Parts: sequence; structure tokens; C-alpha cells
Amino acid sequence: MYRGTWTWVVVLLALFLARSAAAEVAGSTSRYVRRLAESVDLPYDSPYFSVPPGENPPQQVHLTQGDYDGKAVIVSFVTIKMARPKVHYGTKKGDYPWVARGYSTQYSFYNYTSAFIHHVVVSDLKFDTKYFYKVGEGDDAREFFFMTPAAPGPDTPYTFGVIGDLGQTYDSAATLEHYLQSYGQSVLFLGDLAYQDNYPFHYQVRFDTWSRFVERSVAYQPWIWTSGNHEIDYVPEISEITPFKPFNHRFPTPYWATNSTSPQWYSVRRGPAHIIVLSSYSAYGKYTPQYVWLKDELKKVNRKVTPWLIILVHSPWYNSNTYHYMEGESMRVMFESFIVAAKADIVFAGHVHSYERSFPVTNIKYNITNSICSPDVNPSGPTYITIGDGGNIEGPAATFSEPQPSYSAFREASFGHGLLDIKNRTTAIWTWHRNQDGEAVSADKAVIRNKIYN
Amino acid sequence: MYRGTWTWVVVLLALFLARSAAAEVAGSTSRYVRRLAESVDLPYDSPYFSVPPGENPPQQVHLTQGDYDGKAVIVSFVTIKMARPKVHYGTKKGDYPWVARGYSTQYSFYNYTSAFIHHVVVSDLKFDTKYFYKVGEGDDAREFFFMTPAAPGPDTPYTFGVIGDLGQTYDSAATLEHYLQSYGQSVLFLGDLAYQDNYPFHYQVRFDTWSRFVERSVAYQPWIWTSGNHEIDYVPEISEITPFKPFNHRFPTPYWATNSTSPQWYSVRRGPAHIIVLSSYSAYGKYTPQYVWLKDELKKVNRKVTPWLIILVHSPWYNSNTYHYMEGESMRVMFESFIVAAKADIVFAGHVHSYERSFPVTNIKYNITNSICSPDVNPSGPTYITIGDGGNIEGPAATFSEPQPSYSAFREASFGHGLLDIKNRTTAIWTWHRNQDGEAVSADKAVIRNKIYN
Ligand SMILES: [Fe+2]
Ligand SMILES: [Fe+2]
Repeated sequence: MYRGTWTWVVVLLALFLARSAAAEVAGSTSRYVRRLAESVDLPYDSPYFSVPPGENPPQQVHLTQGDYDGKAVIVSFVTIKMARPKVHYGTKKGDYPWVARGYSTQYSFYNYTSAFIHHVVVSDLKFDTKYFYKVGEGDDAREFFFMTPAAPGPDTPYTFGVIGDLGQTYDSAATLEHYLQSYGQSVLFLGDLAYQDNYPFHYQVRFDTWSRFVERSVAYQPWIWTSGNHEIDYVPEISEITPFKPFNHRFPTPYWATNSTSPQWYSVRRGPAHIIVLSSYSAYGKYTPQYVWLKDELKKVNRKVTPWLIILVHSPWYNSNTYHYMEGESMRVMFESFIVAAKADIVFAGHVHSYERSFPVTNIKYNITNSICSPDVNPSGPTYITIGDGGNIEGPAATFSEPQPSYSAFREASFGHGLLDIKNRTTAIWTWHRNQDGEAVSADKAVIRNKIYN
Repeated sequence: MYRGTWTWVVVLLALFLARSAAAEVAGSTSRYVRRLAESVDLPYDSPYFSVPPGENPPQQVHLTQGDYDGKAVIVSFVTIKMARPKVHYGTKKGDYPWVARGYSTQYSFYNYTSAFIHHVVVSDLKFDTKYFYKVGEGDDAREFFFMTPAAPGPDTPYTFGVIGDLGQTYDSAATLEHYLQSYGQSVLFLGDLAYQDNYPFHYQVRFDTWSRFVERSVAYQPWIWTSGNHEIDYVPEISEITPFKPFNHRFPTPYWATNSTSPQWYSVRRGPAHIIVLSSYSAYGKYTPQYVWLKDELKKVNRKVTPWLIILVHSPWYNSNTYHYMEGESMRVMFESFIVAAKADIVFAGHVHSYERSFPVTNIKYNITNSICSPDVNPSGPTYITIGDGGNIEGPAATFSEPQPSYSAFREASFGHGLLDIKNRTTAIWTWHRNQDGEAVSADKAVIRNKIYN
């Protein structure tokens, strides 16, 4: 009996302590250890990069949203020989009553000259409609399809895939295959696409292989592009001094639709979400075009129409990996107070090759002399999600700072992708899917409450 | 006797307290009150803007350094009709055995079309030599002169004038006239030249008037240009979307000489000083061209040749005026640690229309989680001088934050200019001259000790 009493005391004490810990909601660092594999790009003859058969077949077909609200897509494709930049489309497979015409472009980069790159804005589409489209002529023709989103509206469910820093390794392929099994309807891409700049003279052929690799997804659903550092392609030693030149030739964004003057920053509304894309590698000082545009765009956000305000940026503002630590600090200092005031729900970033999710957090009280400069975990802040874990050639960023900072909710150095499943105006379910598990498994999950409708 | 003893006690106590205060070296805020005058631009028919007589006379003649080391100048001038972009020069007045040829340019801005703007690099000059030069032909010819600096070297005395945010008001004229009485050998200009953008559609004629106004100095000595926000001229409403277009057409900088790829950031060596010009309104994130360039350029600084390392930037990193407060914070966060590591001596800024000088200060220990974010007054930091008090149309920034922060040594809301009188490798005398006093009076003075040679 004596020993029994003590046992009870210990059990109760243990339960009490466990409960206290849960109430504190401390962050956790996953000790999951991914298989150790060399990060290496898929070989040029990989089936992932195969060129379609034909005389001059369209290849590297990709879609992005083509207007503010989702009634247009930009269809892009590449041909080795000159071809007409046009897209045939309709709402029944094999029946294409309409045609849209665009423009063709080419660029040189050091000793590389691109093939013909075609961009066609297909507009005046109906919301929430499946479209079939055809690029190329005769025997070369290729057919794809996509769904338009429902009209922007507060209770339109919508699921975004979220991928960053993808690259074109075996791990990249695992990430993409994994995502293809999901029910994601379009992708928020956080920058760093092909890692062509890891090759001598930023070998642009790796942009071509990458674009063939991702076609299996992006020819069927729009990917919303963020520019990363691997898109800068600034190499003054070989006289390549125009930042983003190859990216801008290959991956148009609908920046004109929101009065932006640069493909690097823009916004789209898609279903229940207003998505603002920022550029970590363009000017963001006060008075600069990006700054002026962001201030304006935030005024246009109408949460009655789009309850979810989502920011995309390449370099994270909150992260606790030692790799690239604090690189986003300068932009955070400039913009964080604006997006907190705008009650942004989520800020997605890439760049760091690990997964991390923050608690809602702010750090906007610093005035130089007041010493108030610690991140403040509080409900008024956005959730920051770093998801640069697409699986590129540079390998995972496996060293987290210790102890885990208060703002860090969950972090793990595995490759994977995320899904943002917006249920309605109040609730979104965020899941992160590590490549080693089946798609149904979520290695991290969080219910995200809307900042306005809660 | 009893009262006498008390008197002594009081006197000694007073002396003790006074001495303690002096030992603390607290900053001071000058209560000098400038005359209250409306800040208004000089009228178009002001003699300051008069066009030289002749059929097609060169006007708006200005010089800037034309290479890394001061053996070249860029001579710029404007003609209403087309003219040859050439400069005749020699070392005797009226005798011009040599000729240099350059290029001509023109730009449009909304409904304004510029006259012909000519730029001629005059190179292979001898150091420490007086040159005479002629622009224009026949009866239109105009003659000027300049001195080249001594070769970069550690004990070459040199005096820089320092002017920011000049504009073209009556106050601007007072500043310029005042500077003309000084012994300044060239000008470090901190940005915000003409304030043409305060006029509807950024009326570019005000760039022409400004350039005629400053000719009386800048045709005779190079001004080293920093870009300010008033040079951005970004007006998407009227389809003017290329930042710095007018400025870059009018005011070339020798950026190519230091492997920069933009006129907005570059460096020159002049006498005992290595001067690095940064751009507050271009990208400065990690991996961007300016960032990459700055890291490289700092490696090239050789303090054995140029003991003084001086940084120019438009938006200040340390300042305590409530106007534009913390606008430079984002760039400070990115670059401060680099220039502290490089032991920069002085950082000059403009933008805030008041004068302020800091104590040597650093704030580079913040790591997000450590709460170490207060400016630390210590000898390893540069002296920060804000001198956007040239007298432009926007008037003085007269509200300082209170109490005066620890890093602020002296501040006053008057218009004026500065002189940096570099004596040798160890010592420079900095003086600030308010417009209301004679040039011989310095309203603020500081002996600046070199960070390497002390
Ligand atoms: Fe990156
Ligand atoms: Fe300014």
C-alpha cells in the first residue's frame, strides 16, 4: 500500500507535467532522418527529360495564371524550329473551336541560344470550368487540359500545392511524383526552379530539361511563380548583367494585370485567396517600384471577396536553420509591419532547404532605441512557412539553431511539399508531406484560422 | 564664515558635476533657429539659370571623376541643337592641343524631350595638374578648368566638400555660394539634385535649370554623385517605369571602372580616400548585383594606398530626426557588418533635411533571438554624418526625436554644407557650415581619427 500510494503520486505528477508542457505549445524539431543519398541531378537522358516525338513538337508546356482573377491562363511552350505562338482550346476533349494568339521570344546567354519560346494569354474563360487545349500543328500537336478556379469568393474551397527550390534531382522527381498524387489544384512555387546556375556558365540547357520535367504537372494546372536567387543569372564575368533575363523570357507572370511594372512582383486572386508575390532580389527600399506597388496592392485587398491573404517570397523572414540565416532580415525590416497591419494569414518562403513552420509571430516594435526586438509569438502575426525542401542539387539544410526559437513550431530537414487546403473563410488545413511517406501521410499538420473571420 | 564654507561646498560640487558631464560626452541638439522663410524654387528667369549667349552654346557643363584613380574626368554638357561631343583641353589657358571625343544622348519623359546631352571621358591626365578645357565651337565656345588630384596615396591632403539634397531654392543658392567660398576640391554629393519630381509630371526642365545653377562649381571640380529618391523618376501613371532614367542620361558615373554594372553604385579613389557609393533605391539583398559588387569592392580597398574609407549613401543608417526615421534601416541590416569589418571611417548620407553627426557607433550583434539590438557607441564603428541640408524646396526637417539617442553627437535643423579636410593618414577635420554664418565659421567641428592609422 505504501508503495502503491507513491506510485499514484508519481503518475499524477507525470500527468500534470505532461499537460503543462502541452499547454505551453513549445515548438518541436523532428529527428526524422532521411536516407542519406547524394544530391545529384538526373542525367540528361533521363525519361523525365524526354522530348516528345515529332518534327517540331511543342515541349516544356507550362501554365500560369494570366490575369488578376483566374479567368485567363498564360500557356507557354517551346519549339526547336519556329512555330506559331497559338493555342487552340475548348471545353470538350478534341474539340477546339477557339484560338488564342501570343508572341514568341528567344534569348541568348553566353554561348547558349534558346529555342523559340512561345507565350499565349488565353483569356475570357469561364470560372470553374474544365478546358482542353492543343499546342502545335498536325502530327506535332499535343493536347492538355486545365480547370479554371471558381470566381474569387469567400467560401470557395481551394487546395494549393506548395513547392519550393525544386531542382531536377532524383529527390526532385520524388517530390513532384508525390505532389502529382495529391489533390492540389495549382501550385504556389516559392522560387529556385532549375538550378541551371550550378553548372558552368549557368548552362541554360538545364532550364530546358527542368521545364520538360515539370510539364507533367504544370501543363495541367497553373504554377504561380516566385523568383529566387537561382533565377537571377547575373554573371558579369561573361557579360551577363541583366538580372532574371532567362527566367523572364521563359516564365511570364501576369504582373501587368495588377499595375506592377516587373514580372518579379505581382499578385493574383484565386478562389478564396489573394496571393501577393514579392521579390527578395529586386529593390524594396522605400520609394522603389516594388515598395510603392506593395503599399498600393495591400489597399486593394478585399477580404470580403478573398478572405485569405497569402504572401510568397523566396528568402524567409522567420526561420531557424543555420543555412541562409537572417538573409531575409533586410526585407522583413522593410515590409513586415505592412503585412501585419494587413492581417496577412500566411507567408510562404523557400530558399532554405528544410521545412519549418512558425507560430503566428510579429516583430515590429523595434524603434532603434527601445531594445524591443524579440519575435513576439502572438495571434496578430502571420504563420511563416519555409518550404525550400523540393529536393534540389544542393542537398538538405540539416543544421537547425539550438535551442529552437520560441517562434518555431515545427522543423525538419527532409524533402517534401505542402498542401494548403482552404476549407472556407475561417479555416485552412495545412499539411506537409515528406517524400519518404505516402501522400496520405502528413508529417506536419496545422489548422490555420483566418485572421479576419475568427 | 559659516555661509562662506557653504558657498565653497556649492562651488566645488558644481565644478565636479560639470566635469562629470563633460567626461560623459553627451550629444547635443543645437537650438539655433534659422530665419523662417518659405522654401520656394528660384523663378525660371533667375540669373542662376541664365543660358549662355550664342547660337548653340554649351550649357549645364559638369564634371565627375572618370576613372578609378582620378586621372580622368567625364565632361558633360548640353546643347539645344546637335553638336559634336568633344572637349578640347590642355594645361595652359587658351591653348588646347588635345581633343577628346565622347557620345551624345537624348531622352524623353512624358511630354518632355531633352536637348542633346554630351558626355566625354577625358582620360590619361597627369595627377596633381591644372587643366583648361573648352566645349563648343567658334563663338559658342566656353572655357573652364579643373585640377586633377594627386595620385592616390596615404599622406596626400585633400578637402572634400560635402553637400546633399541641394535643390534650387533661395536657400540652395545660399548653400552653393557658401561652398564656393570654401577650399573644397571636389564635392561628395549625397543625392537628391534638382527636385524636378516636385513638379507635375516630374517636369524635367527643372533638371536643366538645376544643371545651369550648379555649373559655377561643377564645371570646375568634379562632383561625385550618389542617387537619391528624387532621381528615381518612377511614374507608372504616365508610363515612366524605368527608375533613374533622366538621372542616368544626365549624370554619368564611372561605374564601369570598378566592375559595377550600374551607374547607381560604384567607387572612386581620390587622393587619400577610397569612396564607395551605394544605392538606397536599387536591390541590395544577398546575391543581388549591388551586394555582390560591394563584397568584392571591399576586398579591393587597400588602406596602405588610401587610408580613408568613405561610404556615400542617400538614406541614412543612423539618424534621429523624426522625418524619414528608420527608412535606411533595411539597408543597414544588410550592409552594416561589412563596412564595420572593413573599418570604414565615415558614412555620409543625405535625405533628411537636417544636419546630424553621430559618435562612432555599431549595431551588428543582433541575431533575432538575443535581444542585442541597441546602437553601441564604440570606437570600432564609423562616424555617420547626415547632411541632407542643402536647402531644397521641401524645407528643413526640424523635429528631432527626444531624448537625443546615445549615438547622436550633434544635430541641428539648419541648411548648410560640410568640409572633410583630410590632413594625413591619421587625421581629418570635419566642419559643418551653416548658411547663416560666414564660411570661416564652423557650426560643428570634429576631429576624425582614421580607423587604421591610430
Ligand atoms: Fe534560394
Ligand atoms: Fe531624399
